[in-house]
Amino acid sequence: MMTGTQQPGTQPKVKVRLGENNYGKAEVQLMKIKRGTPRHELREAKVRVAMYGDFGAAHSEGDNTDLVATDTVRNTVYGLAKEGFESSIEEFGKELLTHFVKVGPRVTGGFAEFTEHLWERVQTPAQPQGHDHAFVRQMPKRTARVETQDGRRFTVTSGIEELYVLKTTESGWENYLLDERFTTLPETHDRVMATFVTAKWEYAVESCDYDAVWERVYRQIQHTFTDHYSPSLQRTLYLMGEAVLSVCPEISRIWFQMPNKHHLVYNLGRFGLENNNEILHVDPEPYGLMEAWVERAE
Amino acid sequence: MMTGTQQPGTQPKVKVRLGENNYGKAEVQLMKIKRGTPRHELREAKVRVAMYGDFGAAHSEGDNTDLVATDTVRNTVYGLAKEGFESSIEEFGKELLTHFVKVGPRVTGGFAEFTEHLWERVQTPAQPQGHDHAFVRQMPKRTARVETQDGRRFTVTSGIEELYVLKTTESGWENYLLDERFTTLPETHDRVMATFVTAKWEYAVESCDYDAVWERVYRQIQHTFTDHYSPSLQRTLYLMGEAVLSVCPEISRIWFQMPNKHHLVYNLGRFGLENNNEILHVDPEPYGLMEAWVERAE
Amino acid sequence: MMTGTQQPGTQPKVKVRLGENNYGKAEVQLMKIKRGTPRHELREAKVRVAMYGDFGAAHSEGDNTDLVATDTVRNTVYGLAKEGFESSIEEFGKELLTHFVKVGPRVTGGFAEFTEHLWERVQTPAQPQGHDHAFVRQMPKRTARVETQDGRRFTVTSGIEELYVLKTTESGWENYLLDERFTTLPETHDRVMATFVTAKWEYAVESCDYDAVWERVYRQIQHTFTDHYSPSLQRTLYLMGEAVLSVCPEISRIWFQMPNKHHLVYNLGRFGLENNNEILHVDPEPYGLMEAWVERAE
Amino acid sequence: MMTGTQQPGTQPKVKVRLGENNYGKAEVQLMKIKRGTPRHELREAKVRVAMYGDFGAAHSEGDNTDLVATDTVRNTVYGLAKEGFESSIEEFGKELLTHFVKVGPRVTGGFAEFTEHLWERVQTPAQPQGHDHAFVRQMPKRTARVETQDGRRFTVTSGIEELYVLKTTESGWENYLLDERFTTLPETHDRVMATFVTAKWEYAVESCDYDAVWERVYRQIQHTFTDHYSPSLQRTLYLMGEAVLSVCPEISRIWFQMPNKHHLVYNLGRFGLENNNEILHVDPEPYGLMEAWVERAE
Repeated sequence: MMTGTQQPGTQPKVKVRLGENNYGKAEVQLMKIKRGTPRHELREAKVRVAMYGDFGAAHSEGDNTDLVATDTVRNTVYGLAKEGFESSIEEFGKELLTHFVKVGPRVTGGFAEFTEHLWERVQTPAQPQGHDHAFVRQMPKRTARVETQDGRRFTVTSGIEELYVLKTTESGWENYLLDERFTTLPETHDRVMATFVTAKWEYAVESCDYDAVWERVYRQIQHTFTDHYSPSLQRTLYLMGEAVLSVCPEISRIWFQMPNKHHLVYNLGRFGLENNNEILHVDPEPYGLMEAWVERAE
Repeated sequence: MMTGTQQPGTQPKVKVRLGENNYGKAEVQLMKIKRGTPRHELREAKVRVAMYGDFGAAHSEGDNTDLVATDTVRNTVYGLAKEGFESSIEEFGKELLTHFVKVGPRVTGGFAEFTEHLWERVQTPAQPQGHDHAFVRQMPKRTARVETQDGRRFTVTSGIEELYVLKTTESGWENYLLDERFTTLPETHDRVMATFVTAKWEYAVESCDYDAVWERVYRQIQHTFTDHYSPSLQRTLYLMGEAVLSVCPEISRIWFQMPNKHHLVYNLGRFGLENNNEILHVDPEPYGLMEAWVERAE
Repeated sequence: MMTGTQQPGTQPKVKVRLGENNYGKAEVQLMKIKRGTPRHELREAKVRVAMYGDFGAAHSEGDNTDLVATDTVRNTVYGLAKEGFESSIEEFGKELLTHFVKVGPRVTGGFAEFTEHLWERVQTPAQPQGHDHAFVRQMPKRTARVETQDGRRFTVTSGIEELYVLKTTESGWENYLLDERFTTLPETHDRVMATFVTAKWEYAVESCDYDAVWERVYRQIQHTFTDHYSPSLQRTLYLMGEAVLSVCPEISRIWFQMPNKHHLVYNLGRFGLENNNEILHVDPEPYGLMEAWVERAE
Repeated sequence: MMTGTQQPGTQPKVKVRLGENNYGKAEVQLMKIKRGTPRHELREAKVRVAMYGDFGAAHSEGDNTDLVATDTVRNTVYGLAKEGFESSIEEFGKELLTHFVKVGPRVTGGFAEFTEHLWERVQTPAQPQGHDHAFVRQMPKRTARVETQDGRRFTVTSGIEELYVLKTTESGWENYLLDERFTTLPETHDRVMATFVTAKWEYAVESCDYDAVWERVYRQIQHTFTDHYSPSLQRTLYLMGEAVLSVCPEISRIWFQMPNKHHLVYNLGRFGLENNNEILHVDPEPYGLMEAWVERAE
């Protein structure tokens, strides 16, 4: 498909410069087990660490002097997990970034991102409160992102992924714009509503009990999902945000991305059958997609 | 990369015939909600239906006479879900196959496969036993396959997928073949053991309470995972099979596929740090993979 | 959900035995580069090796004596790739299985499965026939499965995956069963036909140039896809099989799995617009799914 | 895990407000076929459209008045694809956004995102230049994002995804920071380098032949990948950016995200075998990850 006489690579080069950039290691799969007592505890996370800094020579001249190898980043994640990582992924992110700014001659800042897998204790007849050292993985994931420009002050964002909730009633979609040429959808005041919640939030405080806050948000989102008639996914999103900010003074604002997973009432009338919202086609795509921040008003 | 003078498609045709074959519809996404009382119930499954029969003319002559369209198969899944599907996916599979053998002039048998998503009721302060109409999806999946050659007698297989369990101790791997040239792994009597259980089982009975059996198997597998020191994943697999057959007289035999998800003790000695099985690299691949049937001995 | 007084694990154990079983290593990611000349060659495959044999004691008694560790299997794949793997994945599979039967005291047979990634040489102005050592990955995959019961005689199956082809015309679906209650699809003699070809074939010969045969099949399938009006995907499947068997005397029979990826003519009439098969919704699911063997008739 | 006497949902509500937000439809799967001549042309893209505007009442009061339903967005994508979409996805994005700002009483702007699947014509003996109406899908994808604040001026970003390139030599990694405690990687001046290129670029012009520019970038990236010894992936990234900006005056800056897909020389010395970069383990994770913008210097 290349046409003309000029070939790739033979043009005179223009003057360019390096813009915003970072590098590091991604998909480091870390597990830490606390074995201090017979009741073991474990945390498992996929970790990405990226560094900011003076990396111009590496790009423009191929000069790697003083660069931290990404293999070193990997080793560091495991090494510091042993020396630190006593509590949450958020605190561990601070430890990692503090380290890289300290030891990397060219590193001025960076970010650490975590996707934490949640494990519940296996319930057995002998240990109905959960087994001491056997676990079963759960579907939702906990996320965190810690960023710093200087290795001292940190911006922390925490989140939830893959929380899939559905209600079979108490939801509708009415009073929207009907006179647009491309509108064909009928109004309804009783439909199935389902969404796959992704949320992230920022903090009003320097530090807090991130584990406790996460748990509170996770419970509240599920609770608010159930406690009202929903005229739209946007409305439910907003109520979730309002409720989370009400029960979590630590949080300054929260963002949601919520797809509207459509459950279409299958047309059974063609076969002489009634369908009172009982038989549904779970349409994988397309889906409505809502994104919004909910913030404190003062 | 084609060489020589002979071109594709210009050769004389050899005599061929149609061998074993089937066709149908796959990935039909079905949800059924029971709304008879305020406490709704729901079942959601991905369905595949495939038909066996006299489909030779369609293949060898392009003659579609009397073929059931796969679009009709899709419609039928939704239509019969309204008229039937009162209990388990296993029973629904029998209903579907009975129908296709009856109405398809060329259909003599077939199979129906299901992957069922599991939904738990959302727990709220007001409804700690679970909400009446709000649900949250779980990670493990329930599967079933129903097959018939004649539309009257059915072979039922039920199963579990994506049950991810892990224990932090009480597992080892010793006494294996050490003198093979390519063996480098050291023996251990204390390691992390993790696996992603896939199981399926066949029945000793014509029919039973498939939901109850599934629940019993699901609990028992988790329980047996915790109740012994495991010298190998093969041993644990066998004990799971033995325990399931012991608590489920309805089941004739059970098959497991269990990857050994390796959690490698990260070499921290290089950094002057001890690592007592605390800091692990969760290796995504390769993995050991074990498959076996466990059967009744008499 | 457990009810009653009897708990999991407390039942008396029934007598069981080990049924069909195997174990080995999966997802071994292997690349071999031939560097003998400046024009490098490379092969990359995901490998699974599974062994059959006398593994009863490991399962029923936790006795690992003489078992080949799956870590050893992994090492062996890399080691034998150095010493052998001179040509195709099919031949390499034979080498691997021969080895395991020879060195594993309890191993009597097994299978090796490969998914090979295809790399084409990067085309540059200086090397329009392809670069000596730079490659770009292609979408289709080549597969192979080699099985043995005794380490001497092998059953070889080769295949193709992820070959996604589409034609914008010269396909229809007519004359099928219309009087079934659940049939609503209208007939058509001009539609888009698209499928994601999975194929596998068995050989009529002990051994052959597997690379050359694969290439011939790969070309022929694409060619046959284009050379006729298709009254059904079943018909096209059959013609593909017939054509492959005609150009490949080495092959005894071939199997296809072909989804009918539906491209639905979007209903634009509601907006006063014509749609002559121009604007289509590419429906991800459900899809028709056809499976069949095509075999030599004598 | 909830502790204390206060329950979710029972707290007094704090004052909140809606922050940045958007909504629309995602994963609309569109195909357009041009049938004007026997040599058909096709374009297939996954489309997301999101709208900005005055959506406060929907969130804070559940008032949907004048909202464009996301189902209407879906219909519009197909309808406008019929009336427009004569050239590139970039131009189609402008058409879509112009429409929504015009017809949505509350819509002030938005964005449209595309992931385009690339189809090549099937090559046959009769049509070596490619078949008139039969196509085979390629692995790399073309992307675009068009954004507007007012429905009149547009910011266009184009991109490439899933371009997987590898070179077997002419790459190294040396002279990096070696005295850090966690550094264990040895230096090398001959390694395999492989990356999965994701790129996106912005334009210095209002509009241009987006198809031609894309093709030029796509070729140039592959060419530059081959034309130098690479001391680091960062250096190659920068050279790719420089080359693209040199051959594409239409582009103002370009961003790359390039993972360093590690191909580890497998330790065969343990088995008495040499390994001169021939036998490699393709490690899926972790991977180095580099991100950077390359910009015009004046």
